[in-house]
Amino acid sequence: MTVEAAVDLSPLREHLEDAGVDAYLVDADGDDSDQRYVSGFTAPDPFQTLVTDDAIHLLVSGLEYGRATDESAADTVTRRSEYDYTELVAEHGAHEGKARTVAAFLEDHGVDSVSVPRTLPTGTADGLREQGIDVVLESEGIVEEIRAVKSEAELEAIRASQRANEAAMARAEELIAEADVADDGTLLVDGDPLTSERVKEEIEVTLLRHGCGLDDTIVACGADGADPHSRGSGPLEADQLIVIDIFPRNKETGYHADMTRTFARGEPGVEARRRYEVTRDAYEAALEAVEAGVTGAEVHDAACDVIEGAGYDTLRSDPDAETGFIHSTGHGVGLDVHEQPSVSPVGDELEVGHVISIEPGIYDPEVGGVRIEDLVVVTEDGYENLTDYHLF
Amino acid sequence: MTVEAAVDLSPLREHLEDAGVDAYLVDADGDDSDQRYVSGFTAPDPFQTLVTDDAIHLLVSGLEYGRATDESAADTVTRRSEYDYTELVAEHGAHEGKARTVAAFLEDHGVDSVSVPRTLPTGTADGLREQGIDVVLESEGIVEEIRAVKSEAELEAIRASQRANEAAMARAEELIAEADVADDGTLLVDGDPLTSERVKEEIEVTLLRHGCGLDDTIVACGADGADPHSRGSGPLEADQLIVIDIFPRNKETGYHADMTRTFARGEPGVEARRRYEVTRDAYEAALEAVEAGVTGAEVHDAACDVIEGAGYDTLRSDPDAETGFIHSTGHGVGLDVHEQPSVSPVGDELEVGHVISIEPGIYDPEVGGVRIEDLVVVTEDGYENLTDYHLF
Repeated sequence: MTVEAAVDLSPLREHLEDAGVDAYLVDADGDDSDQRYVSGFTAPDPFQTLVTDDAIHLLVSGLEYGRATDESAADTVTRRSEYDYTELVAEHGAHEGKARTVAAFLEDHGVDSVSVPRTLPTGTADGLREQGIDVVLESEGIVEEIRAVKSEAELEAIRASQRANEAAMARAEELIAEADVADDGTLLVDGDPLTSERVKEEIEVTLLRHGCGLDDTIVACGADGADPHSRGSGPLEADQLIVIDIFPRNKETGYHADMTRTFARGEPGVEARRRYEVTRDAYEAALEAVEAGVTGAEVHDAACDVIEGAGYDTLRSDPDAETGFIHSTGHGVGLDVHEQPSVSPVGDELEVGHVISIEPGIYDPEVGGVRIEDLVVVTEDGYENLTDYHLF
Repeated sequence: MTVEAAVDLSPLREHLEDAGVDAYLVDADGDDSDQRYVSGFTAPDPFQTLVTDDAIHLLVSGLEYGRATDESAADTVTRRSEYDYTELVAEHGAHEGKARTVAAFLEDHGVDSVSVPRTLPTGTADGLREQGIDVVLESEGIVEEIRAVKSEAELEAIRASQRANEAAMARAEELIAEADVADDGTLLVDGDPLTSERVKEEIEVTLLRHGCGLDDTIVACGADGADPHSRGSGPLEADQLIVIDIFPRNKETGYHADMTRTFARGEPGVEARRRYEVTRDAYEAALEAVEAGVTGAEVHDAACDVIEGAGYDTLRSDPDAETGFIHSTGHGVGLDVHEQPSVSPVGDELEVGHVISIEPGIYDPEVGGVRIEDLVVVTEDGYENLTDYHLF
């Protein structure tokens, strides 16, 4: 059974009652975090999970049946062949055949109306509607809300990913610290420029050695670092700010971590140093504000207060700002690297067990970028920091 | 611009005319291969691509605007703010606000009916229908069909991924060849068991060093290898068959490769050796059958003929077979590791430029698994093998 299995789906069941539908239906593969969370199962091809008022039912291919029976959180697992899938596809084609199979699965469980996530494929929704099933959208993101509060097992999985992250960050820091500096300021390793790409490769290899993968890493120097969405490229330079943001995912558990540090080799200058100090003060003020019952918006305001107080723009002081603090203070982290809750102007009340990043930053192409990010879990009267990596 | 940009979408435009709709709409992030292919763009959050009879239009967030303008295959790129996205979300909520923004984008391009892929989120389809847009499903998978035929640039990208794959396979082979053998037959490296997990880690590190990532690799020994869907785990053993199947994806281009080899350290036995020979004969017969105009089904039959002729079951001789050749002969490979065309009983005509795997195998828990897989591109009178790795 996966880490997230056997979770409390009662808010989803209250929704079913309020909406007057029989069940909640997910049709997705295991890359879909809601699917993985609700079913406690992951598979490369789409499968169907049905949450009724008292059970979870899975519909899978014959290939996945054994593993689904062993590993999933479902009360029942049924093979598609039970509903004559192959015959229905032969008679009605792949799409209508699938719709008829899923409709038979629903009927078998006494379901003729379903609530579905907004991401359900239109082909599935329209196909079921043609089979007489009432399909209504669940627009509040109830499963995402449930996912936001982490169990102890989920926290353990996130801690493990953050340990891998710390090892990768240490390797990156070491590469920058030990590089030679060419006359033109370029960092060199064994005579070759130390590039963003090279540091990312070392980060990724270190993560792999710790059981984690990732699609993307940010190692952004100078003006690159002033664009919060740039991944960075090319040679790293002395006397420049270097933003490193790593967000790995454990290959087994699927849970992410997230951390950012800003480095400089040599002397980045007085203004860069001042921005680093202000960002660090904003990060500390935001952390100070975190506790259950406080809203994500209030935590974001705490960071904005410090940064605006030091004379820099934020999106709060100027919604069109292109320099200064031009993103949110944080986001939830779990099966998705960006999930609920939001630590931004629209952030709702934080709850015990929410895992959030706290990551203020200050950006300007003239000076470069600074960002400092830790990952914390919200507690009754504050937070526990899941990150163990030094600041400067 | 990405590798796949500037492709020939005329079959999609013929479909628009046949279906009597104004345009084709994709609403997905860059992980969706159809989106990446049609837009020539990739981004972490969903964006919208509209294909009309004479142009490609993109709707993106302000954050992606610069990059989309520089990199995408689109004729026009528009920011969501042009249609007052933020104001519409404030007034109508996130979902209706987005639907109204996309509807305004469609109206701006004179579109009031769209064809959409089956995977379009139901939230988007229902939201647009509420705004008066006619939304119809494109059920034939026309974009997947277009994607099946590779351009020279796409072939280059696939070749590069296969070069990385060969380096990773060589590393795995070396680990197995150089291991010590314990008295109980367990392979040892530096005194520790050489596990499936250890070999996978070395494969993945080698791939990373060559610019490729992957989520999964198969290193399956003995009975594990007899289940074509097992990833394998635990210590590798001498005198057993070891199936290694690697399917990396280049991080930049997004294109996959795919290759399988079966190894043994020591003496796997007469029956295992016979199955290896039969699988190799089936692989050669299937390759021999490949050329433009032949169907995937005929290529599959060529492999089945050899395996059945040697006395083993196939799914053709027994649809319920649990041992023997219990999968298809191959599949298309490109932006997705499994894509069109199919080399199976339902495989249609092969065309010049189709990239397919040829991967027969014979499985039985009593003996283990054998699979041999190369990646080839279909030519007018045969194929070009994209794989350069020795057989035994």
